[in-house]
Amino acid sequence: MKVLIIGGVAGGASAAARLRRIDENIEIILFERGPNISFANCGLPYHIGEVIKHRENLLVQTAEGMEQRFRVDVRVNNEVINIDPKNKQVEVMDLKKNKKYTESYDKLILSPGAAPFKPDIAGIKAKNVFTLRNLDDTFRIKELVDNSKPKHAVVVGGGFIGLEIAENLHERGVNVTIVELANQILAPLDYEMAVLLQDYLREKGIKLQLGDGLKEIQHKEDASIVELNSGTSIETNMIVLGIGVRPEIDLAKKADLTIGERGGIKVNKNLQTSDPDIYAVGDVIEVKDFINGNQTLIPLAGPANKQGRIAANNILGIKDEYKGTQGTSVLKLFDMTTASTGNNEKILKRFNIPYLKSYTHSISHAGYYPGAMPMAIKLLFSPENGTILGAQAVGFIGVEKRIDVLATAIRAKMTVLDLQELELSYAPPYSSAKDPVNMAGYVASNILNNSSKVIHWDEFQDLSNDSFILDVRTKEETKEGMIKGALNIPIDELRERIEEIPKDKEIIIYCAIGLRGYLAHRILVQNGYSSKNLSGGYTTYEPLV
Amino acid sequence: MKVLIIGGVAGGASAAARLRRIDENIEIILFERGPNISFANCGLPYHIGEVIKHRENLLVQTAEGMEQRFRVDVRVNNEVINIDPKNKQVEVMDLKKNKKYTESYDKLILSPGAAPFKPDIAGIKAKNVFTLRNLDDTFRIKELVDNSKPKHAVVVGGGFIGLEIAENLHERGVNVTIVELANQILAPLDYEMAVLLQDYLREKGIKLQLGDGLKEIQHKEDASIVELNSGTSIETNMIVLGIGVRPEIDLAKKADLTIGERGGIKVNKNLQTSDPDIYAVGDVIEVKDFINGNQTLIPLAGPANKQGRIAANNILGIKDEYKGTQGTSVLKLFDMTTASTGNNEKILKRFNIPYLKSYTHSISHAGYYPGAMPMAIKLLFSPENGTILGAQAVGFIGVEKRIDVLATAIRAKMTVLDLQELELSYAPPYSSAKDPVNMAGYVASNILNNSSKVIHWDEFQDLSNDSFILDVRTKEETKEGMIKGALNIPIDELRERIEEIPKDKEIIIYCAIGLRGYLAHRILVQNGYSSKNLSGGYTTYEPLV
Repeated sequence: MKVLIIGGVAGGASAAARLRRIDENIEIILFERGPNISFANCGLPYHIGEVIKHRENLLVQTAEGMEQRFRVDVRVNNEVINIDPKNKQVEVMDLKKNKKYTESYDKLILSPGAAPFKPDIAGIKAKNVFTLRNLDDTFRIKELVDNSKPKHAVVVGGGFIGLEIAENLHERGVNVTIVELANQILAPLDYEMAVLLQDYLREKGIKLQLGDGLKEIQHKEDASIVELNSGTSIETNMIVLGIGVRPEIDLAKKADLTIGERGGIKVNKNLQTSDPDIYAVGDVIEVKDFINGNQTLIPLAGPANKQGRIAANNILGIKDEYKGTQGTSVLKLFDMTTASTGNNEKILKRFNIPYLKSYTHSISHAGYYPGAMPMAIKLLFSPENGTILGAQAVGFIGVEKRIDVLATAIRAKMTVLDLQELELSYAPPYSSAKDPVNMAGYVASNILNNSSKVIHWDEFQDLSNDSFILDVRTKEETKEGMIKGALNIPIDELRERIEEIPKDKEIIIYCAIGLRGYLAHRILVQNGYSSKNLSGGYTTYEPLV
Repeated sequence: MKVLIIGGVAGGASAAARLRRIDENIEIILFERGPNISFANCGLPYHIGEVIKHRENLLVQTAEGMEQRFRVDVRVNNEVINIDPKNKQVEVMDLKKNKKYTESYDKLILSPGAAPFKPDIAGIKAKNVFTLRNLDDTFRIKELVDNSKPKHAVVVGGGFIGLEIAENLHERGVNVTIVELANQILAPLDYEMAVLLQDYLREKGIKLQLGDGLKEIQHKEDASIVELNSGTSIETNMIVLGIGVRPEIDLAKKADLTIGERGGIKVNKNLQTSDPDIYAVGDVIEVKDFINGNQTLIPLAGPANKQGRIAANNILGIKDEYKGTQGTSVLKLFDMTTASTGNNEKILKRFNIPYLKSYTHSISHAGYYPGAMPMAIKLLFSPENGTILGAQAVGFIGVEKRIDVLATAIRAKMTVLDLQELELSYAPPYSSAKDPVNMAGYVASNILNNSSKVIHWDEFQDLSNDSFILDVRTKEETKEGMIKGALNIPIDELRERIEEIPKDKEIIIYCAIGLRGYLAHRILVQNGYSSKNLSGGYTTYEPLV
């Protein structure tokens, strides 16, 4: 058997290694149009920031290394320019020799990835306008920073790559403005969670221009002027585009492989394209969203690597299915960690999937042990049975741990009730006897089974005059600010002063994070009041006003 | 309804708060024979080490605070000395007034905890011999360290508390010798995993006296002499006993409640004792081992807190079941983290439960991002279907994260095959595209489905003369040491030099961590050899010889 692989990063490299481990005798040829296979694509921004100091560290595996170890015929600087499915052969351009040749196959794996999107606007082709995909891009950006000491950079796009580049440029002393078309950065988060990150970035000195898009770029002798849709113009020295990526489907299209509605190659569970001898993996394919079952594009390294292995298994007759992508992801920005898994509220709304939500604020570990830091967790779950649909967390320590636990719970189709029972490792330096995930489970379960009625931050604007807002924090805490029109009765005085609360109104209760509010809610309800507790309390509410 | 709770730490305090949240009108009385409720019992060793600087920080909730917040009648310094189940009342000794009185109940919750074991040997009652259970114990140990500047301490018992005390005393400048009866410290780990921790502790300057027990203590003017079973004697200034704890079942016994075979109070799934109006929670009860289904004693804060809530629910008519304890735990020792969940090999052997095992060594996050540290993971799983039975991990960063993910997988009854598919959060500062948990899943799955035949470190002594040991590491790596009698053929030369390997012997392959060994195994098998790969490689093997 002869297997050709197109694309030598992540999925392609994984497939090659797996093929050889299982079968010592098949012929494997890997084509990579660039000069390198298997480089550290997720590490590129950190080389610009000099966190990863040496170029060599970005090379995970060399072509020679892979040839020796796995007897794979690795052909870098060789671009496949045509696939002929009928005759089962590909046409290849040797970019060094500038010569075409053909190669036949029994099975073909497509792993070409996705390319950064570059809008067709004036000034986009200048030398100080960059995208970041490969080592060359990285070195060119770094050289400009090293040599020209730019004072200012515009990063277009507030997604993972844009934000990581922004952090790393900032760490190199470059003033950064992030321009983002949406009204928030980091699309996997919902608005109110993204706000936490936005406030933190502004504190760090990064400027955000939200709800605004790139119109054109004018290049002058000393600087460039970035013109935005809003009419704002920003003088800058360099522009990095992190607007998103598009699957590289040209080859697949020319070969008449089916392309999905989202613009990626369509594959079945075994990662076969519409041609059963051609497999596709990684950022180029549409995957099934693990939560809502719809086709989607989720360009992430973890899924790409796993898909490479699965395609290899299927080619060798070991039946293996790819069950979908959750979109679990994490982002470090300075000392802050942001992570999420599953669907967010925006996606659930788009697909009309019913959901409940909860907000909790926990500390990373026992408060009496030094270094504990707050973390916000948002859970989305089914109103029917509590099945977890998604989770988002923002904080400083142990954020990715909680999201990994929740990602595992989602894979296992667990409910928020199950989260209460999770037995997670506890010692004061690491967690609390009730872990933040347990706490999120308790709060969500209370909402699910109606022992707690909650109101969410986004329902405040709809409050009628029949509402009475009750702040049950201490006097001291109210000095930080209160919700307009609220009456403060500290929780520990509530039973004595309950007469002060009108019986004919709906009582909207809040405390700092929702815990005392829940107790107050329980007290009021049992005293014949109708009340709701603000989920996440003032800590969720305050950054949004 | 009137509910009495005996014991105000962890489970008792949790039960009281939950009872009140659900029902504003029941009467709740909480008896605590000590002066404090709800103190930071897991934080005590860290006050001795001055990591937690202030005494006040150890008080999680005061009696007054709980009374105000939850309208619980908290009676500290009140010891329940008798239960009369027939008349549903308890006899209480007010320790301050030295006066007895009775209190009736509708429901009773026992949460007396477990007491440190103190063997009845000569010299054990001296002032410089301590156990550590409550605040007073903590302050007495700290005072001795503060005032007498002891040069040396013997810690008897190498469990969680013993090790945490050892670390904290060491950090205060005290030389520490740990005496442990078993041939290893930290019983939840298997021997070969504990060895990693032992080597690290010795490096840090802590002495270990393993397989040896306390015989007697002689007290002299300047120092005490600890005499051990082996005949060894150690001159020291203070002795701390961390030998283990015994459930405080005296009250329960006197009240004729059923005591289980393991010496804890027997409860059903709803945490009811043999008397349906009496519930028991926390360290005093026997729980079902979540893995093997047998009754066991697992004194941990997480389960105790969860049980308190469950007992409260059942008392209030909200059906709630406790489904068993996994024993998930974590320990910080200097910069090292050790964590485990589920059953270890010793327990599986004791109950004749069939198992397979795998060892993997991963780095905490992408190697090209600074600060990555190695971590060892041991998985135990069913040979039938791959169900995960237990996991242990030792390392420096992200160890508790991986164990929490595995603890969640165990709760969900996942298999090692499922671990391959877990979509965990990846960015270079946090993990690798294939997380250490994915890697453990791949390796274990290969063992389960026989694509990899392995040999374990503990099978080496049984190797016959028909075995041939093959080291596939690089020449450079073999300088660190090799397994006796091995031939070195680096993996990248293996295909060319395969003739050097005898066809009539069983080939035992090893590399550094098992990854290249697996490829070598695949190459040999497909060339007609019979071979096995050393699981975990030289990294697992070396510390054990």
